[in-house]
Amino acid sequence: MTLRRKKVSVIGAGFTGATTAFLLAQKELADVVIVDIPQMENPTKGKALDMLEAGPVQGFDANVTGTSNYEDTAGSDIVIITAGIARKPGMSRDDLVATNEKIMRSVTKEVVAHSPETVIIVLTNPVDAMTYAVYKESGFPKERVIGQSGVLDSARFRTFVAQELKLSVKDITGFVLGGHGDDMVPLVRYSYAGGIPLETLIPKDRLEAIVERTRKGGGEIVNLLGNGSAYYAPAASIVEMAEAILKDQRRVLPAIAYLEGEYGYEGIYLGVPTILGGNGLEQIIELNLTEDEKSALNQSAESVRNVMKVLSAN
Amino acid sequence: MTLRRKKVSVIGAGFTGATTAFLLAQKELADVVIVDIPQMENPTKGKALDMLEAGPVQGFDANVTGTSNYEDTAGSDIVIITAGIARKPGMSRDDLVATNEKIMRSVTKEVVAHSPETVIIVLTNPVDAMTYAVYKESGFPKERVIGQSGVLDSARFRTFVAQELKLSVKDITGFVLGGHGDDMVPLVRYSYAGGIPLETLIPKDRLEAIVERTRKGGGEIVNLLGNGSAYYAPAASIVEMAEAILKDQRRVLPAIAYLEGEYGYEGIYLGVPTILGGNGLEQIIELNLTEDEKSALNQSAESVRNVMKVLSAN
Amino acid sequence: MTLRRKKVSVIGAGFTGATTAFLLAQKELADVVIVDIPQMENPTKGKALDMLEAGPVQGFDANVTGTSNYEDTAGSDIVIITAGIARKPGMSRDDLVATNEKIMRSVTKEVVAHSPETVIIVLTNPVDAMTYAVYKESGFPKERVIGQSGVLDSARFRTFVAQELKLSVKDITGFVLGGHGDDMVPLVRYSYAGGIPLETLIPKDRLEAIVERTRKGGGEIVNLLGNGSAYYAPAASIVEMAEAILKDQRRVLPAIAYLEGEYGYEGIYLGVPTILGGNGLEQIIELNLTEDEKSALNQSAESVRNVMKVLSAN
Amino acid sequence: MTLRRKKVSVIGAGFTGATTAFLLAQKELADVVIVDIPQMENPTKGKALDMLEAGPVQGFDANVTGTSNYEDTAGSDIVIITAGIARKPGMSRDDLVATNEKIMRSVTKEVVAHSPETVIIVLTNPVDAMTYAVYKESGFPKERVIGQSGVLDSARFRTFVAQELKLSVKDITGFVLGGHGDDMVPLVRYSYAGGIPLETLIPKDRLEAIVERTRKGGGEIVNLLGNGSAYYAPAASIVEMAEAILKDQRRVLPAIAYLEGEYGYEGIYLGVPTILGGNGLEQIIELNLTEDEKSALNQSAESVRNVMKVLSAN
Repeated sequence: MTLRRKKVSVIGAGFTGATTAFLLAQKELADVVIVDIPQMENPTKGKALDMLEAGPVQGFDANVTGTSNYEDTAGSDIVIITAGIARKPGMSRDDLVATNEKIMRSVTKEVVAHSPETVIIVLTNPVDAMTYAVYKESGFPKERVIGQSGVLDSARFRTFVAQELKLSVKDITGFVLGGHGDDMVPLVRYSYAGGIPLETLIPKDRLEAIVERTRKGGGEIVNLLGNGSAYYAPAASIVEMAEAILKDQRRVLPAIAYLEGEYGYEGIYLGVPTILGGNGLEQIIELNLTEDEKSALNQSAESVRNVMKVLSAN
Repeated sequence: MTLRRKKVSVIGAGFTGATTAFLLAQKELADVVIVDIPQMENPTKGKALDMLEAGPVQGFDANVTGTSNYEDTAGSDIVIITAGIARKPGMSRDDLVATNEKIMRSVTKEVVAHSPETVIIVLTNPVDAMTYAVYKESGFPKERVIGQSGVLDSARFRTFVAQELKLSVKDITGFVLGGHGDDMVPLVRYSYAGGIPLETLIPKDRLEAIVERTRKGGGEIVNLLGNGSAYYAPAASIVEMAEAILKDQRRVLPAIAYLEGEYGYEGIYLGVPTILGGNGLEQIIELNLTEDEKSALNQSAESVRNVMKVLSAN
Repeated sequence: MTLRRKKVSVIGAGFTGATTAFLLAQKELADVVIVDIPQMENPTKGKALDMLEAGPVQGFDANVTGTSNYEDTAGSDIVIITAGIARKPGMSRDDLVATNEKIMRSVTKEVVAHSPETVIIVLTNPVDAMTYAVYKESGFPKERVIGQSGVLDSARFRTFVAQELKLSVKDITGFVLGGHGDDMVPLVRYSYAGGIPLETLIPKDRLEAIVERTRKGGGEIVNLLGNGSAYYAPAASIVEMAEAILKDQRRVLPAIAYLEGEYGYEGIYLGVPTILGGNGLEQIIELNLTEDEKSALNQSAESVRNVMKVLSAN
Repeated sequence: MTLRRKKVSVIGAGFTGATTAFLLAQKELADVVIVDIPQMENPTKGKALDMLEAGPVQGFDANVTGTSNYEDTAGSDIVIITAGIARKPGMSRDDLVATNEKIMRSVTKEVVAHSPETVIIVLTNPVDAMTYAVYKESGFPKERVIGQSGVLDSARFRTFVAQELKLSVKDITGFVLGGHGDDMVPLVRYSYAGGIPLETLIPKDRLEAIVERTRKGGGEIVNLLGNGSAYYAPAASIVEMAEAILKDQRRVLPAIAYLEGEYGYEGIYLGVPTILGGNGLEQIIELNLTEDEKSALNQSAESVRNVMKVLSAN
């Protein structure tokens, strides 16, 4: 028996992909392979080497390599897909979906060919539909294809609450259902500071402002940056999901999961509370929702279905 | 008595500055203020907010803020200067030096005005001369103005050695004197794997190739990236120096320090082994050098002096 | 300006005191001074040295020293009191209280003399009354004298819940009010798995069994050990409180705090939710309680008052 | 494919065994099973439970269980043997060896039966001979049976050097060959502060005093404690070896390894520099020794052979 290091491949060497790779290596969670298209092979190698050279200083042993060859991803325990384009001015949403779907399909073919047993985590937007596309293309069981959005959304919510109450982020929990962005369904009643319901600690209007800010959290960063979008918090969020799986932690984390009847939905990917562990998606947790929450979730599901209609796979 | 968090300001919100800020926050070493010019205020705020939003996920409590107002840096325990321009095609070295010197002087004025007791760590290139410019402008004692280059150089050296020997980076040590890049003086005889001199483990030609690769380590990344330069390993290197000071660790680390007779040099900044602790530069360690090493160090000092001549301050 | 390390003194070099010292050093939170009586000076020095010798391997820089001389504690940022005797067979509760009160008074005199600005955290049992005795003897404001019980109680509760649900401990929160042990008031409705109320995840009888097991959690360990009591989880609990203060984290943590009207009590120390930060006890959080909870808390307060009657200070 | 946690069994629930288990859990390196004899089953369970209850506070997910049933160790990736008795007053060394050999043989039988693929690390004294006994009884290849002594010895050496030079332990390296205690062969010329040979930093007599103190480092703690021996630094040392193997780090660490010609010895276990990785002992590193060092190592080997003669297995 040989004890081997775990292996994670990150598809897409943009800021989010690169930061994800770095955080994985830093925690010594796995050796990391960063993959991008052949035209980007050198920059991808450059980023990987730069990370590697931080290892002696930060004290981590993890190999980080950049490549455009999917053979290098063979036998990955987890594959994280961050590849895809961002919506450009003048581009219709449908064009974005079509383009990124093509990328998902092409990436997934390669991933599956070299790591047939892997768990795939998708970050590419629009993430619910893209996770669906990967699921379909992969032929994997739903346990092994999930998407990220809720960890990030709730991280933002928690940040704003911590600022509001001037408290440690360690003691703030947040909870979101549904899609990313405007379709997010924050369950404020399941959100706490040190276990104390936020509704008893923060005036209603301030709490609503925080919820609204969370919904638009991605846009806030985009507007500030002027050029590009957030990558520190998104990368940290994916890494938390990956860690839960790699270390079989059975964490309770929101994930974009394939629903087969849960919450009354069938055949779509939607953000729900899940248990993530050594099998990938171990369980979907079903909560009783209020009428308002149900209606918000319905709207969120509707949005996802609208995007899914654009997919070639349906 | 109130226990307050430490405070570090990072001047320059480029990749290295931003990554430095993130690594400081991640380790909960201090609250971090990132400063850039007014035109970059929004992107700087955007990066800071994105980092902050990673806090709940990565479990760190550290405030990170972006600003263009030096008043926000008041009372910093450490200020890290990464601001400055990179050499552009067609730009003479002297133009680069003159431009960055102006930036150093302007930044330093502001830093000193708001944090008269701080320790300053300089990263801007050409780093020996820029550290000198900051020293002169600050009026600080030499204990409180140092530059970074050797931690990074030796990190690269250690990475290449670890790859060569297929060993943990944790057990490889490296040692460099002198300036950055071509003027670097790697002391291979003070470099080890698990305490074993590298010269007994790696054939001479391979070791020379590693030294040569280290010398050109910055350029290797620049060439691969195509656009821009390394920032993960540089940021990690500065953070190690900052941590040694913030936590009064009395680490033995290479630093660019002001020499007053040490190694036979007077009145220049040069990379030498130092002890970094709660007072900043606590001590310069003098080693006996071989004739070859002395001659290489002389050449390195000569290069620094040549750049210093361009400085307006001399 | 010199950046100095923080300093924590731990009074009592028994298992809990020693483990507390080790965990503090391991996290590089402070230099640590362990104090015990002159007869125990050598064993105390031996434990401190053994811990120190783990530093190079675990990679921490923190001085750990053992002493019987309170002068060595001078200028502590935090003092943790674990000294005191355990109840022996045939010893009445009142004898225990009287003996430990004497120890508290004698220790506190020394602590205050050498660290007049410190924050004191008490662990000695019966902890509510002993914290009161330290408070009285110290003459400190209530912000700087607190006791530990709730962090440990809720850690045990969280452990049992994590086992019951086979989930990560990272996602389980628990909440307790009132005294230690039988007088504990676990607020199950403020306890969650991933933000989901435990009452919806665990059948009522199982949850009651967990609450009951938590109440008797200290006794469970005592019975298993046969000789001695728990020290890993108690030490970890104190260290979490100390870290919140040392790093000014403003954590929401249960602590034994001096009540002046909060929850309807006056002049007693009782376990309540608090905010711990750079000033020590920064705030007591008042919750609306149900009638049952109020009645349980009353009973808990009554127990504390009964012990307090034994104190010479009243 | 399911990602499972790694598993480490620790045989012997004394202070060293327990502390080892705690440090393994704290780092989330593996789930831990602590085994002791049936009469100690309850205390073993108590210690394990206490550690587990520290998990929610320290933020680690690792199951820790206590047992007297070796079936619970089945499928361990690593087994650490700390069981055995300490020499009591009036007991001859041969009696100690004979008693501990019996324990080694009985423990090893059980370990091998339930984890035929595991790597075994031995700590029981006299450790060279006991490692040999385990090796013989196990029938394992030498790659999978090693002993600990040099990591601890060099940790002590590094601690004393750091104190002498008032430097960070992070920058001090030390190097020892041969047996534990008086038979230790410290290679001072391979020991450094920040890469600088100690011989150039510390006067000869002080360095000799440090070497002598290191040799007697175990006894120093025993004398101070009065009752019992060191466990923090020994446990940290074993955990570093276990981590190197569990994470396939290929660390350069001293270990007690089976020699088949290396250093001129055949068929004995002796402390030598090794590479530890996913296969256990990956390589023994042979160094050129001076005549003095050779002679000291000979004496060390002689001591080991003398103890081995007492073993029934020869």
